[in-house]
Formats: sequence, C-alpha cells, structure tokens
Amino acid sequence: MKITEKLQKAEKEGRTFWSFEFFPPRTAQGLQNLYDRIERMRNLGPEFIDITWGAGGKNADLTSSLVQVCQETIGIETCMHLCCTEMPKEKVEWALAQAKQHGCQNILALRGDPVAGTSKWEPTPGGFTNAVDLVKHIHEHYPGDFCVAVAGFPQGHPETPEGEDAGKQEIQWLKEKVDAGAEFIFTQLFYDVNIFFNWVKRVRAAGITVPIVPGIMPIQNWEKFEKWVARENIVVPQHFYDALKPVKGDDEKVRQVGTKLVAQMCKEILANEEAGIKGLHIYTLNLEKGARMLLQELGLEGRREQIAPLPWRPSLTPHRRTESIRPIFWANRVQSYLSRTDEWDEFPNGRWGDSRSPAYGDLDGYPVSININANDAYNLWGHPETFADISNLFAKFCRGDLNKLPWSSQPPASETSVIDEQLAKMNELGYLTINSQPAVDGVSSDDKVHGWGPSGGYVYQKAYLEFFVSPELLSPLIRRIERDPRITYYAVNKQGDLRTNTHSEGPNAVTWGVFPGKEIVQPTIVEAVSFIAWKDEAFELGLQWANLYPPASPSRNLIESTMNTSYLVNIVANDFRDGMSIFEPFLLKQNSVGKVLESTTQTVNGVYEGVKEGLNGLVENVKHQINGVNDASTNGNGNGVAVDGH
Amino acid sequence: MKITEKLQKAEKEGRTFWSFEFFPPRTAQGLQNLYDRIERMRNLGPEFIDITWGAGGKNADLTSSLVQVCQETIGIETCMHLCCTEMPKEKVEWALAQAKQHGCQNILALRGDPVAGTSKWEPTPGGFTNAVDLVKHIHEHYPGDFCVAVAGFPQGHPETPEGEDAGKQEIQWLKEKVDAGAEFIFTQLFYDVNIFFNWVKRVRAAGITVPIVPGIMPIQNWEKFEKWVARENIVVPQHFYDALKPVKGDDEKVRQVGTKLVAQMCKEILANEEAGIKGLHIYTLNLEKGARMLLQELGLEGRREQIAPLPWRPSLTPHRRTESIRPIFWANRVQSYLSRTDEWDEFPNGRWGDSRSPAYGDLDGYPVSININANDAYNLWGHPETFADISNLFAKFCRGDLNKLPWSSQPPASETSVIDEQLAKMNELGYLTINSQPAVDGVSSDDKVHGWGPSGGYVYQKAYLEFFVSPELLSPLIRRIERDPRITYYAVNKQGDLRTNTHSEGPNAVTWGVFPGKEIVQPTIVEAVSFIAWKDEAFELGLQWANLYPPASPSRNLIESTMNTSYLVNIVANDFRDGMSIFEPFLLKQNSVGKVLESTTQTVNGVYEGVKEGLNGLVENVKHQINGVNDASTNGNGNGVAVDGH
Repeated sequence: MKITEKLQKAEKEGRTFWSFEFFPPRTAQGLQNLYDRIERMRNLGPEFIDITWGAGGKNADLTSSLVQVCQETIGIETCMHLCCTEMPKEKVEWALAQAKQHGCQNILALRGDPVAGTSKWEPTPGGFTNAVDLVKHIHEHYPGDFCVAVAGFPQGHPETPEGEDAGKQEIQWLKEKVDAGAEFIFTQLFYDVNIFFNWVKRVRAAGITVPIVPGIMPIQNWEKFEKWVARENIVVPQHFYDALKPVKGDDEKVRQVGTKLVAQMCKEILANEEAGIKGLHIYTLNLEKGARMLLQELGLEGRREQIAPLPWRPSLTPHRRTESIRPIFWANRVQSYLSRTDEWDEFPNGRWGDSRSPAYGDLDGYPVSININANDAYNLWGHPETFADISNLFAKFCRGDLNKLPWSSQPPASETSVIDEQLAKMNELGYLTINSQPAVDGVSSDDKVHGWGPSGGYVYQKAYLEFFVSPELLSPLIRRIERDPRITYYAVNKQGDLRTNTHSEGPNAVTWGVFPGKEIVQPTIVEAVSFIAWKDEAFELGLQWANLYPPASPSRNLIESTMNTSYLVNIVANDFRDGMSIFEPFLLKQNSVGKVLESTTQTVNGVYEGVKEGLNGLVENVKHQINGVNDASTNGNGNGVAVDGH
Repeated sequence: MKITEKLQKAEKEGRTFWSFEFFPPRTAQGLQNLYDRIERMRNLGPEFIDITWGAGGKNADLTSSLVQVCQETIGIETCMHLCCTEMPKEKVEWALAQAKQHGCQNILALRGDPVAGTSKWEPTPGGFTNAVDLVKHIHEHYPGDFCVAVAGFPQGHPETPEGEDAGKQEIQWLKEKVDAGAEFIFTQLFYDVNIFFNWVKRVRAAGITVPIVPGIMPIQNWEKFEKWVARENIVVPQHFYDALKPVKGDDEKVRQVGTKLVAQMCKEILANEEAGIKGLHIYTLNLEKGARMLLQELGLEGRREQIAPLPWRPSLTPHRRTESIRPIFWANRVQSYLSRTDEWDEFPNGRWGDSRSPAYGDLDGYPVSININANDAYNLWGHPETFADISNLFAKFCRGDLNKLPWSSQPPASETSVIDEQLAKMNELGYLTINSQPAVDGVSSDDKVHGWGPSGGYVYQKAYLEFFVSPELLSPLIRRIERDPRITYYAVNKQGDLRTNTHSEGPNAVTWGVFPGKEIVQPTIVEAVSFIAWKDEAFELGLQWANLYPPASPSRNLIESTMNTSYLVNIVANDFRDGMSIFEPFLLKQNSVGKVLESTTQTVNGVYEGVKEGLNGLVENVKHQINGVNDASTNGNGNGVAVDGH
C-alpha cells in the first residue's frame, strides 16, 4: 500500500502515526538480528518502516534484499531509499524493478551523500544529478507504481552555499521535487522546534501542500548524540545540553532525560495546529530501546498498527497477494515456507483447493538451516547426553526459560501461555513438542491475543500439538488417541512410514473466522501432503543440531539416533469447545491435577462472568427494544413505523 | 447409492430399515401432490423409495420423470421398476439410460402384468420374455451401474400352472434370476406369516442367500383391502377377518384395527431369527396415513433416515454430485433453482468461487409458476382488497394458519418456530416476509432441528430475513438498519434499482458447519448476483398471483401495484450470537414486548441449563483426568506412560 493512503487513513481515523527508519547492517548476524528486531518492533505499531540506501551505493543489494524480506516475510509496508550517488541508470533501473517485484510501493528519492572519503558530491557518469531527476524518472518509467517521497531540510542542506537566498533556493528545489511528483516529505533530523515551524511556514508559503513527516532521532547515549549533532550540524537548544550534560556518563540516565526532551519536542510539533503535522518518522539507528521509550513517553506505545488481517503475517509481495491459507507446520519457520513455495503459480484464495499438489521443493533446493553456530548452540543447549537432557531443554523452552530451539528461533507465542505448563509436562514425559496452538471458541476478532481479520467477527481455533516421540511411546499413545473420535492425528518417521486415523483427503481447518458479510475465512490448515513435506525439514533441523557436535560425540550420537528413530506426530482436538481434551491421551501425571483443577476453576469463573455479561446484555437488549417500541409508538409519523400508509 | 450398500449399513448399525413404494399418478395435480407427499414422508425415515413402472408400460415417461424428481429435487434414493410388458429393447435402453443419467442406481427387474384388458402375458416383439433376461441385459450393458432387485412370490405367481412342482419351479426361476445378478428380493404382498416363513425356508434351501425384503401393504380401508386381496388372490388369516369385518363400515376403525394386525405380522417377521429379515417394504398406494400409523405402531416412526449431509437436500443426480453451496433465496423453490442452474458446468465444491457468474437463465426459458389454479387460490387467499388483507395472509402463514403462499408451497420449516411470532408481527407492520432462518450458535451436528453433516460437529447460522416492502417503509428501515454495523442488506425493486450496505464482492456465508478433520463447510450463502436473478422470479410469482384474478378487479390491481412498487429486501444479522438483533430495525410494537421478555426468560433458562451442563461436564472431565492420572500411575508399565524407557 502506498504510504500516502496510509497517512490519509490515519488522518481520517484521527490518530497520530509513526514510522521507523532502519539501515542495512554490515554482517550476516547483524542482518538476522535486525530481522528479529523489526519483527518485534512492528508490535510498537509503526505505520510503515523505511530502509536507507546502502551507504555510498555500495550495499545496494543489501538494501534490496532487506526490503524484500520486510515486504515478503515480515509483511510490513516498507519504503526504500534510492540515491543518485554512484548509481548509473541501469542500477537505478535494477533497484526499481526489484522493489516493484517485491511489492514495495514507496521510494524515498535522494541525491545522497558524497562518495565515502570525499566531501563534495559528484554525479556518476550516466547517472542522475539531483533527486528531482530521480523523481521524474520513477514516474516516467513506473507510472502509478510508486509513491515517491523526498527529503526536506529544516536547517538547510549542508552543501547549499551560504547566502541570503540559501533558504529560498532550497524551498525552490523542494517545490520542484514536489511538482515533479513527490507526494510527501521526510525531514532531516532537528532538535529545535522553532527552526522546524519556521521552515514549515516557508514550505507552505511556497505552495507546497503535501504532508510533511518530521524526522526524529531519539537520544540513545551521549556519544551517539554528539556524533550525529556534529556530523549533521544540528542546532541543539540550550536546555537539551543543560539537562543532558550532567548525566552524560550514565547511558541509562541520558536515555531517560533524552527521551523526555525529545518527547516534549514531539508533543509541541503535534500540538501545533498551524503546522498541521500528523505523525513522526523515527530514526531508530537500528536500536529498539530509544524508539520504544519515546513512544511510551508520548503515550503511543503498544498501540497496534491494526488488527492483523490474518492469523499469520501475510506476505506483501504481489504474487502472494491472494494467499489466504497456509499449513500450520511452518508456523515457526515462515521464511522457509515462503522459500519452498516461492515457485507456486497461485495461492489458494479462501481454501486449499488444488494447490496442495505442487511439490514443496526438495530440501536440496532450499537452504534449510537452523541458523546458529556451534558455540552459540553449546551456550544455549549445552551438550545433552541423555534423552532427559533433551526433553528438559524442550520443557524449559515451553516455560519461557529458553529462547530458542532448533525448530523455533522465537520464544512461544503469547497465546500458548494458557497451555505452557501442559506443554512442559508433555516434554518431561518424552513428547518433544515443536509446535502448538490452544483452542479458541469464538472470541472477538478484536481480541488482543487471538484476534485477526475485520472488526465485528469471531475467531476460532482447534487445539493443535506437534511433537517428536519414540516408537515405544507412540503405540500406546495412538491407542489412547483412538479412544476419542474427536481427535485426529498423523504420525510419520524419517523414512516416511505414516500412521493416521483421518480418512479424508481434504484439509482440516484449524483456524477460522466468521465476519460480517463474508464467507468463512479459514487461513490455517493441517493436511497430509504438506505434513509429509514438512517432516523432511523437521528431521533435517534435528540432524543439523546433531552435526554441531563433534563426530562420535555422545551429544551427536544421542540427537542423531533420536531423529533417526522418532516419529513426528501432529494431533488436532477437533472439538474446539473442549480444547483441553487434546492433553487427555498423554495421561499427565499427578502433579498436573492441580493445574487441571486450577484451569477448571478459571473456566468456571469464566462461565460465571459470561453468564453475568450475557444477562446484562439481555437486560440491555430488552430495555433497548422497549425503548424502540416506545419510540415507534410516540413517533409513529416521524422516522418510525407508519403501517397505515399503504 | 446402491440399496444393497444401504441394507448392509443398516445391518451393521443394528437397525431395522423400511422403504416405501409409490406409483405414478394420472394427473398433473396428482403428481404435484405426490411430490409434496414424498417430501413429507421422507421424514418417516424410509431407507429408500421405489416407483412402479407405468401400468402396462404406457406411462413409462412418467415413471422416468418421477425417478428424476425424486433423485434430483427431493434427493431421496430411488429404485425404479422396469418391466418387459410392451417394452421393445430400445425402450428398455432408453429407460436405463435415463435412470443412469438421473443418478438412479437401483432397478427392480420384472416381467410385469399382462397388457391391460388381457389376462395372459405375451412378449413384445423385439422385447424380453422374462425378468431374468432383463437382469442379464442390465448387467451386460451397464456393468456395475445398477443394483438389480427381483420379485419373489411367497404365495406363488398367479400365472404359474397349478401342480405339485409349481412351488419348486418358481424357486428355480428365482434362483436363475439371482444367479443372473439380482442382489436382493422384494416379495409380493401377503398377510399370512406362515406362508412367508415357509417360502423363505425353501428359498434359502435352494441356495439363495441374497436379502429378502417382505412387501407389506397397510390396511387403509375395507374396500381397498378386499379389492387387493381379491385381485392378487391373497391368503388372509381368519383373525384378520374376525377383527376387521365388525368395523368395516368405519374407515377410521378399519385403519386402527388393520394397523394393529399388520404391525403384529411385521413384528413376527422381524423377530423370526431363522428367517433373518431385517426390514420392510411398504406398499403405500401413494397414501400417507396407513404407512405412518404402521410405523408408529412398530415404534419406528419419526426416526430419521440419517442426519442430512447438508442443510438443504442434496440432489442425487450425478452432475450435481459435488454441489456443496446454494444461495438461500430459492430455499422454498428448490425445483426452480435446479431447473435454472441445470446447464451449469460445475457446482462449486466448498465455496462459491467463480460459479456465481453463469447466468441463472432468463425467466422466459424456465417455467416459473406458482402452480395453483384460480379456484384453489381464491379458496386459500380469498380476494384481497387492501394491503392489510395481503399482510394478514402473510401473518397467518407465519402463524401456521395458512399452508401456502405464492412463494412457498410448504408451511414454514420447523426451525423457524422460534421466530414465528416476530415474523407474523413484521407482516402486520407491512413487511411481507417470504423467507427466513433463525440464528444458530453452534449446536451439535446431530441436533434434531438444526443438525446436518457428519457426527461430532457444530453447526451455525446467521439470522436471515427476506421480504417485500413499500418504498415509504424502506427508507426509514434502511436508516435504522445502518445504525447496526453488524447487519447487512440488499434491497432491489422490480426495475432492478439496488441499495445495499455491503461493499464486498464475495458471498456472505449464512449457514456453516465445523466438523472433525475437515475444512469449514459453508453450504448456504447470500450474495448479489444470485439475489438479482432471484428477484425476477420473486416479483414474477407475485404477478402470477395477481393474474389469477380477473383483469381490472380490485385484487389484481392491488397485488400488481404492490409488486410494481415494492422493494424485495434481504437482511442478514451477521452476529449469530445475537440473532434477535435482526428484528431491532423493525421496531416491533408494544404487544411484542411480552414475547421479547418471554424469549429472554427462555434464553436465561437456557443459559442456566448450559451452565449446569457445562459445570457437570467440567466435573466429569476432572474426574476423568484424575482417573487417567491414577491409571497412569498404577499401570505405568502396561499401556500407560513409560517415561524412563528412552
């Protein structure tokens, strides 16, 4: 979606928006960390993010792939910077083609900084000289495809020659960029609101009406602050220094004081009706804390961008735009799922249909990797020597005492907290859980934990568990599962021997939603073909973990033999109104009875609450209807009922 | 489905089955009545029905179309009789081809009676001489397509020459028919169980092992009984006469006494283990009462054949086999819907998809008809002269005091009884309702009123209303509807002017079900394209009603102008947990408050029951889990958990 549309929507809804800027990191590990960080920071509710252009044009590829991952995997609307520096036309062409292909619809067109090591900007042969040329080029070659933003300089561009008309000249250049088709303006950072307000006045006076989004840089620590202020020649009000200098040796205090200062500035900006500023663009410097503290201080933190349209994060790439259904198995391995299905011609819309059949690709073709080096693995998972060592790791993960497993790079989702103790127990009993979801019996689509989709709907889930288990435990487990016709399962070992009690060819919808005026949406399924494809990956991840230990070491042997003998099992409790029934086949031990009783008590309380609410609702309803009747009786010839009018 | 499969299923489930035989009536009105009767009698739970061959082969077309309607529209498994009398091979071919095309998979192969007016059976040139030839022909030309039944004659065939070996010869012929591929045997009617048991013994002794289904004719009145007994030369035990003759002048008494006699006979048949009879074939003579009383007396009445697979009756025709979704509009006009969509290439499976676009056919091409003559219409609906006369008819229909409206040939479905008073009030207020369904919030798929689909599921409905309304009432109504974002509507007049608050292109699922191991099934929808197609038919039906009155008569003018000015409106209350919200925009009058309060009280009671049940369930659940835990603890090395075994 174009950012201008998002800004219009936010304005229409009368809410302040904000966005985050990130830059491409230099190392692969830094990149992975940034992805995790963007994923977390999206919970802070940015309207969009933007990615700077690889410094000096050198890391153009990196910017482009960052944009791709943000659009496709993280599913967050992304604006890509594009510079003239060291960019011959072909390279600009390539960057725009890539952006379009990844569904990126927003470009910040910049001239860019001088080449690293030089202080004066020089055009590249065959390239562009000014941002305005880039704006024109984009609109000419990609009409309608991109919303183009440009930069504004409230303090003036550092390279503009000094002089009386300097400011006037810059506004003129800005006007040219807007006239060429720029649809909004990001400003360079500043700390002096008066300079900013003054500049806005001049911009508006020049007839520039597009939205202005001020660039705000949180104060993270004294050194960074000083460095940026010096580098960009930023005017800093004296009261900033007065407040910061006394604490400059204490990073934590600098952040606290700095946050208050910057927040105060933001409040002034947003409160100034004449300037008409509706949102903030935050220069994060790839850091989380400063942005989070600033939003907290502004009372904006934690507000979700919007309820997600689906229970999983939809990809924003054009060819996946109609994707509306995914198997549950890759819930913790989204990137891998996206890669493996990248070649698919179409993504079923509203149901699984015939798209079950395309191969998921051989594992050879896809870089299935647990993405961790041996040392980090040892630190996280130690050197397991008995099966109990392994199952304890899994139990710790379920209890939140471990952040990663080879099958999950993220801690369990918040929704599973209601079953984390059961999951931990299961692991202690020898069922190594790698995926799960609790049952949900029609909660509001606006619910903070489970909600998704349009407002006014109800969402549902069937309880789901997936785990590795030894053949010795599997057979009695299956006997117990088969006592309950409401439970369906698939079990498969590395060799592909499959056991199941489902005889239906089709998928089992495990997450669905009911919305006003719509078909039932059923975005998450369990079914055989994709499970078989997933099991190769699931066993491979375990073997990769084994291979992090030296050949013939006890840990390698243990994990390898566990993978080689275990079954991967998924089970669904189809009665979503009795979600805890999924744990019955596991015969949880005595000490879990307390938990069960506790959960029962909670449910009973829930029922009483529900009843109370329901009765209040009924009473309201009756009152309402009686009022309606009275309205109709007393006001029969107005907008009420006029039965005799026929 | 082949009847043999149905019989095996019934036997496996340990239940008695029964079937009904009907014959093709002579008049069009008789035919329409028979359809209505079969529709009603399917609620008596027959495993299948069978249709006799047009007497003397003359009404072959009629039999064939009866079979078609039963398979396609009524959706009941049908067995077709096929005779040799006056049937050259081409005609047999035609009959079989038709049967196959309509999805009929069961044929009763008969030689047939002699041509009407003659007493000796003569083969038709180029036709078949014996049932056995027909059996062979069917299997040869349609291998695997049909389950073929043949007739058995416990009292002997009337035309078999008298003599010592007569019985032996007949058993031999029967054996030949079975050897040629007959898969079960219907018997001619009888009233003497000993004759029947004796015959069964001889049949079994001859090595015939296929199922025998005894033909039972209820005693409807004395004249019919005497006529059939004489015509078929039936042996009647003396105690039948002793009981019947004293009451023979009183039809009601004859039926009561006769029912007890025949029921006693049936009980003896079913109780006789040696005979091994599992079900009954009832010769209904196209009458309802006798069959119903007999089943009641046997304690079999009212048992549903099975929970319907879908909320509407699926057609059994092969080309509609995958049909899984229908618009709600034709709920009371199934035949018309089937005709109008007969040319469709495919029926969407599980969703509406692209099959919305095919035209529903112009009304010209389809015989849209209210199917009633003027006199019957006057008797039913009188000569309305004011709008109130019309709306009173609609209100009467909703209250069950009128059986038909031009838009519904059947009284309202039992499920709407919960809202019948609201509907009646709506009509009195000037909204002429022609279709509705109440909200259902997840009742068991086995529920007697709302249930459908496989066991162990939950079914849901959004509340739905459809009605004609004057433009004067429409505008304020729409204003009130639009106050509640949970309600969506479409309104269209005869000219096609459309008003709606839905902006989604896709359908709104108004009935859906959640089942173990399956996608969500959503068989009934509301959407624009089909609503526009339906409105032509809905207005046309009203105009046909008008045309039953003489030109320029007040009734014709009134109904015509009502149709020409009204809007047809459908509204959906998308919050299925608050189904009564659908009535709020109609501002029901003071005297309906009592009803609302009553319904509230019912709901409150329902909630308390639900809570009680829920708490009991929880307690059971906890007990169960504690037992499970105890099992596991005490029995850890059996089929319990063996955690240390790794």
